Amino acid sequence: MTTSIETSATAFRSYVKKMTSYNQALAVLHWDKATQAPRKGMEARSEIIGTLAGEQFKLATSKEMEQFLVELSEPATLEALDEITRHTVLECKKEFDRNKRIPAERYQEFVVLTSNAETVWEEAREKNDFSLFQPYLQKIVNFQLEFIEYWGNDGKNKYNTLLDLYEPGMTVDQLDPIFATLREKTVKLVAAIAESPNKPDTSFLTKNFPISEQDAFSRFILERIGYDFNAGRMDRSVHPFCTTFNPGDVRITTRFSENDFNSALFSCIHEAGHAMYEQNINPELLFTTLCDGTSMGIHESQSRYWENMVGRSLPFWKHFFADLQKAFPAQFEGVSVEDFYRAINEVTPSYIRTEADELTYNLHIMIRYEIEKGLINQTIEVADLPKIWNEKMKEYLGVVPPTDTLGVLQDVHWSGGSFGYFPTYSLGNVYAAQFTHVMEQEINGYNELVANGDFAPIRAWLKDKIHQYGKMKSPRELVSAITGEGTNATYLMNYLEKKYSEIYKL
Amino acid sequence: MTTSIETSATAFRSYVKKMTSYNQALAVLHWDKATQAPRKGMEARSEIIGTLAGEQFKLATSKEMEQFLVELSEPATLEALDEITRHTVLECKKEFDRNKRIPAERYQEFVVLTSNAETVWEEAREKNDFSLFQPYLQKIVNFQLEFIEYWGNDGKNKYNTLLDLYEPGMTVDQLDPIFATLREKTVKLVAAIAESPNKPDTSFLTKNFPISEQDAFSRFILERIGYDFNAGRMDRSVHPFCTTFNPGDVRITTRFSENDFNSALFSCIHEAGHAMYEQNINPELLFTTLCDGTSMGIHESQSRYWENMVGRSLPFWKHFFADLQKAFPAQFEGVSVEDFYRAINEVTPSYIRTEADELTYNLHIMIRYEIEKGLINQTIEVADLPKIWNEKMKEYLGVVPPTDTLGVLQDVHWSGGSFGYFPTYSLGNVYAAQFTHVMEQEINGYNELVANGDFAPIRAWLKDKIHQYGKMKSPRELVSAITGEGTNATYLMNYLEKKYSEIYKL
Repeated sequence: MTTSIETSATAFRSYVKKMTSYNQALAVLHWDKATQAPRKGMEARSEIIGTLAGEQFKLATSKEMEQFLVELSEPATLEALDEITRHTVLECKKEFDRNKRIPAERYQEFVVLTSNAETVWEEAREKNDFSLFQPYLQKIVNFQLEFIEYWGNDGKNKYNTLLDLYEPGMTVDQLDPIFATLREKTVKLVAAIAESPNKPDTSFLTKNFPISEQDAFSRFILERIGYDFNAGRMDRSVHPFCTTFNPGDVRITTRFSENDFNSALFSCIHEAGHAMYEQNINPELLFTTLCDGTSMGIHESQSRYWENMVGRSLPFWKHFFADLQKAFPAQFEGVSVEDFYRAINEVTPSYIRTEADELTYNLHIMIRYEIEKGLINQTIEVADLPKIWNEKMKEYLGVVPPTDTLGVLQDVHWSGGSFGYFPTYSLGNVYAAQFTHVMEQEINGYNELVANGDFAPIRAWLKDKIHQYGKMKSPRELVSAITGEGTNATYLMNYLEKKYSEIYKL
Repeated sequence: MTTSIETSATAFRSYVKKMTSYNQALAVLHWDKATQAPRKGMEARSEIIGTLAGEQFKLATSKEMEQFLVELSEPATLEALDEITRHTVLECKKEFDRNKRIPAERYQEFVVLTSNAETVWEEAREKNDFSLFQPYLQKIVNFQLEFIEYWGNDGKNKYNTLLDLYEPGMTVDQLDPIFATLREKTVKLVAAIAESPNKPDTSFLTKNFPISEQDAFSRFILERIGYDFNAGRMDRSVHPFCTTFNPGDVRITTRFSENDFNSALFSCIHEAGHAMYEQNINPELLFTTLCDGTSMGIHESQSRYWENMVGRSLPFWKHFFADLQKAFPAQFEGVSVEDFYRAINEVTPSYIRTEADELTYNLHIMIRYEIEKGLINQTIEVADLPKIWNEKMKEYLGVVPPTDTLGVLQDVHWSGGSFGYFPTYSLGNVYAAQFTHVMEQEINGYNELVANGDFAPIRAWLKDKIHQYGKMKSPRELVSAITGEGTNATYLMNYLEKKYSEIYKL
């Protein structure tokens, strides 16, 4: 490296450090707002979040940043940089270009629109009145089309531009066959389950489970699977989430329901799955833009893996069932581990995505994927959404929501302008099954490790293959390096068919 | 106001809003670090605090700020500004001038010095070895003398320049007679108490008080005195403190000791006294530099008022004693309210300032005041501090600390370069007694209100006379407007003599 490049690289890294310091501070301000802040402090808090987010945006889009990027992204210069700096340059350039291509006043209008749209969406959902939300959604869809023009498109499918925001490199060409597989096999499986006479008894899951005891048991399980409480903490919030300040401070939140054992514990494991990804990112990536999960789909693969492939598996509960019965002796009296395992895996077609079981969940996502693809390619009209939603619910899940509140109005994503996000939930499941398949082959005695509650070798594998890299490797690179193939839904369907055939004795 | 001034004033207010947003964010980051953050996240947290504090400092000392101040502090312009903007300009100018007068490289050296000095002080305290700390303290004192040169001095006493940092307008000329009064009367009173045969029984205060029950009872008392939990919260930290994000979010911390009832509750009341000051600042001052207590002394008057004048008074406990006995029936069985009142007001000359009782506390402060004055006026040598400390302890308190750890090394202040801060603790007591004297005259049935636990009229008075103004009025203006006189220690001594004569039946 020449002295001049070295000087620029050092200055750039220092600039990026400042920029990411704002991100960390903003994450703390958000976390505190969601979990700790008193009611009367909310308004001023929102204002300072707005102010600091504005400062962060200025840094990301400044003339100074532009000059760094012009200088450092010259091919020969890029080549001369160390690996971390090179990837940071590329990541910053991608963000910079994306931000710069939208005219500032249009972006500002979009921010105001989505801010208002979220309020209107809340009202529409409350009043079960899609027509209130419809004009806002129409404008948001129009903005997406406009943004696609600014950002450019691969000429194959407009929706690809949006998919790339959340899952770099993902396209409709890849997703269509994935959802075709999921659709075909899941719909059949759900139908077979509906006809099975061997339904699990779930009555004991809705007994009374004191919150403090659920909290203690959840912490016990999280410690055992390897969430590091010295590098994180668990608090309560309205909606569970995971937030990262730095790899040494990755926090999760949960909410407990006294009469529902099936929600909080698995939500905790899910969030801990996200958190363990970020806790294990290479510390050298701290204060770069790479110190983050590489995509929403890969992130979701980690939460789903721990929640479903591990947390809802029979070997896992064979190991922990004695602890569970010790924690809740009255509630699980006379319940066998098999009874419990079947109960926590009950399949019930339902209206709400966030409450769906492991199997039907992907059908909820598929509906959204098909609708988004149609809206962006202008083959579906916003006005027709309630009708289309209900038709697809009927076709795939066999149930029709009685209200739009329980249907097309249930999710916040569209009001915030997040199109292209939903598919990553199913991609998470698909990736998780692919990774599990490889782990079974690569990790000695994989099944015994789960059955013994010995997760250290599994965590080491995940860290080695996925976690450590942060954004240094793209999702495609990770999947290819680990599995030797592309995204493939067959592993997920094999896993689901095997699991549910046993549970429902099909 | 002309359009040009109006435009500048608006731009200035917006600039100050941004600057104070950083302060709020930094306060959240510090609070989180002290109360919530996991161990492994501390290092990165300290770095982002450093980065954002640097950004805030840049804003406070920028060319842009200088231009605002040059333009807006023209006498005619200043005159034309609204009151809040005018005071904000003056406050920013004071800070700006103070920061600008120190050469940047000297300030940087001072920051490094104090950062190292605090670590060395910790080590010296741990090893009971003043000689380790001595060279650092010497350099810090030298820096104080250098800073006084930069900042300027009134020509009367060099120490006045430092006093003004914490208590604007305070001087040695005012403080000397105050401490003379405190010295003369307190030393006599402490001696009389030592000879009194009527010592309180304090044995019940060190029974076992489960922490969760102390926590619940403290929250009950704080709610009753009027700390607004919808505009704040209480957490645990190693050292209790109060921190303000905005008037709608003023948080306090405490620490509980299972075998000492006398510490946590009164510490909670103390911090709540600070917090109620900030919760009641005029919300229009939000996002200006005036949204803060006007001085350390006035701030301390509010914490001491609630802690001592109210919280350690007999009428207060006559009202709450039934609640106390209900909360801790076994611990206070057979204890009368008078027994309890006498016990929580026990006077014992001791080594450690932070553990001192209401009466001897001012003697601890006086020792520090006399030493600081001597160091800054170069009549005392750093090398002689252990000897001088012990001589003064002997003279005023009648006890000599067996080690420097329990003596001259006990406080963190000097290692951080805080000279001029200590006197504000006693000023708080002095002001509190002056204000109480006025309240007794101005608030109808003042004593009955305390005895009935009806604090709303008292809070309204404090808000009206003190809290609402934030930094809009100087401490001198406040004291003069409320009391019609200057700082006067007679009221404090009258209060203390009356209180302790009764308790010890002198």
